[in-house]
Amino acid sequence: MSLIVTGTIGIDTVHAPTGSAEKVLGGSCAYFAAAASHLAPVRVVGAVGGDWPAAHREQLTTFRGVDLEGLEVRPKSSTFAWGGRYFDNMNRRETLFTHLGVLEEAPPKVPASYRDSRFVFLANTHPAVQLDLLRQFPSRQLAVADTMDLWINIAREDLLKLFKELDGVVVNDQEATQLTERTNAISAAREIVKLGPSFVVVKKGEHGAILVHKDGTAALPAFPADERHVVDPTGAGDSFAGGMMGWLAGTGRTDFHSIQTGLAWGTVMASFTIEKFSLDRLATIDRHQLDQRMHQFRSAARIA
Amino acid sequence: MSLIVTGTIGIDTVHAPTGSAEKVLGGSCAYFAAAASHLAPVRVVGAVGGDWPAAHREQLTTFRGVDLEGLEVRPKSSTFAWGGRYFDNMNRRETLFTHLGVLEEAPPKVPASYRDSRFVFLANTHPAVQLDLLRQFPSRQLAVADTMDLWINIAREDLLKLFKELDGVVVNDQEATQLTERTNAISAAREIVKLGPSFVVVKKGEHGAILVHKDGTAALPAFPADERHVVDPTGAGDSFAGGMMGWLAGTGRTDFHSIQTGLAWGTVMASFTIEKFSLDRLATIDRHQLDQRMHQFRSAARIA
Repeated sequence: MSLIVTGTIGIDTVHAPTGSAEKVLGGSCAYFAAAASHLAPVRVVGAVGGDWPAAHREQLTTFRGVDLEGLEVRPKSSTFAWGGRYFDNMNRRETLFTHLGVLEEAPPKVPASYRDSRFVFLANTHPAVQLDLLRQFPSRQLAVADTMDLWINIAREDLLKLFKELDGVVVNDQEATQLTERTNAISAAREIVKLGPSFVVVKKGEHGAILVHKDGTAALPAFPADERHVVDPTGAGDSFAGGMMGWLAGTGRTDFHSIQTGLAWGTVMASFTIEKFSLDRLATIDRHQLDQRMHQFRSAARIA
Repeated sequence: MSLIVTGTIGIDTVHAPTGSAEKVLGGSCAYFAAAASHLAPVRVVGAVGGDWPAAHREQLTTFRGVDLEGLEVRPKSSTFAWGGRYFDNMNRRETLFTHLGVLEEAPPKVPASYRDSRFVFLANTHPAVQLDLLRQFPSRQLAVADTMDLWINIAREDLLKLFKELDGVVVNDQEATQLTERTNAISAAREIVKLGPSFVVVKKGEHGAILVHKDGTAALPAFPADERHVVDPTGAGDSFAGGMMGWLAGTGRTDFHSIQTGLAWGTVMASFTIEKFSLDRLATIDRHQLDQRMHQFRSAARIA
């Protein structure tokens, strides 16, 4: 089934105890699309500026199944850029700079050929923009959105409006608490489900993820990686969402058990993403490696 | 197979946002034995004072399969007592008081009839005492110990000696970091395995548990409970260990996959413990409720 993602394409600069990466391909759209493309073709709606490096486009097109027709290039604008630094155990980071660039302008247009998309993922941006984008997919079968602390603080009303039209919401544990004032992740997710969506996924980083759905509850550990394998956590959450949505679009299913399996594919994709900077590790995995890691994850998380 | 636990029997006073419990049955031995007894008979080695309430003995004997022959009563001494208070989301607590009582005296004696025990769990106490107890079980097939931050700080050498003679170690995530200076739980556990034991279990509370074994790695989420079900987290870790060891002793197995399944039983036992104060919930579960919760846990953690 056709899968579409709307969000940012960015130029990332990352400093970590494991090294640095300057002006590399990043952004929610890029990570999502790269991860999802291993499981289903994916359409990208986003915007970049005239400064977007040709090498970044080239890298994104090496992912078979990533359709860039919806990627707008605005020659007089600049691409969204982000710089950050990770500390000690990679769980904490600080933002060094943010250049909004095209994100301060009008949202990207959805090409007419994309309007029949069935699986829709709205990566983090202003919820009013997400809602406007959402309504451009009248054939949607499953619509899921991400958000961030900023919008919970300054655009809660728009966010609540968006929630009413979504099937699913993906948040991290702090956002879940911030939205609901519940520190227990299951309780927080149940509160969010009351706001409209059929399901909520709470991402807990190294502690895994939970799914609260009107038809059931699921909990998964993270892939048990030791510190040698954690090079750069940037994009883990977006890759997770890409793996989940890619699995669902690839199978055409939207039931509880399929979403639960989708979480496992998301976990596997995120476990690859963090092994290298940017999309470098996602770019080199093949089907065999994917299946092997899924097998390892199943074995590690098995309850006999 | 015969299972034995050495540790404390305590008189607990707990204050939590959900209510208070004054002078109730507690201690690592009590929680461990109560949980384990649902899966295998369990022998208790511990000491109490003349002040130990008859009602506590009565409560402990309601758990079929708990053998109290090794419980020493010292009429002139006082029972270990602990008071604590939990905050907000139950993840933080402060100790209000500790009366060591019998814990300041000689360790309890192991009855001759217990010396043939095959599955041995040494709950937290000074590691030199744990080592001395361990050596009194020459027929042991699986020996596992718990510890705490205090001993890591003041008795590290004794702890390292103990580790060399153990099959398994159970720690929480802070203790794993404190022991190894690794903040990644998998990496920390791998470092501990290098110190002697065949396996290490890292308990992460609401985030589940991991198992690093020379034959493999496992990761489990916690049972997905919402806040309404968390009344008192006291004893969750000891019940977890009791469930794990009870499962292993009950099946007579010590291989990686059996320990992995043991972690799931530990998770299920802990999920019951926290639903009421003291051992009150553990006291009322029957086999059907146990199997039902294990089934729920399997469904929630299932990866198709």
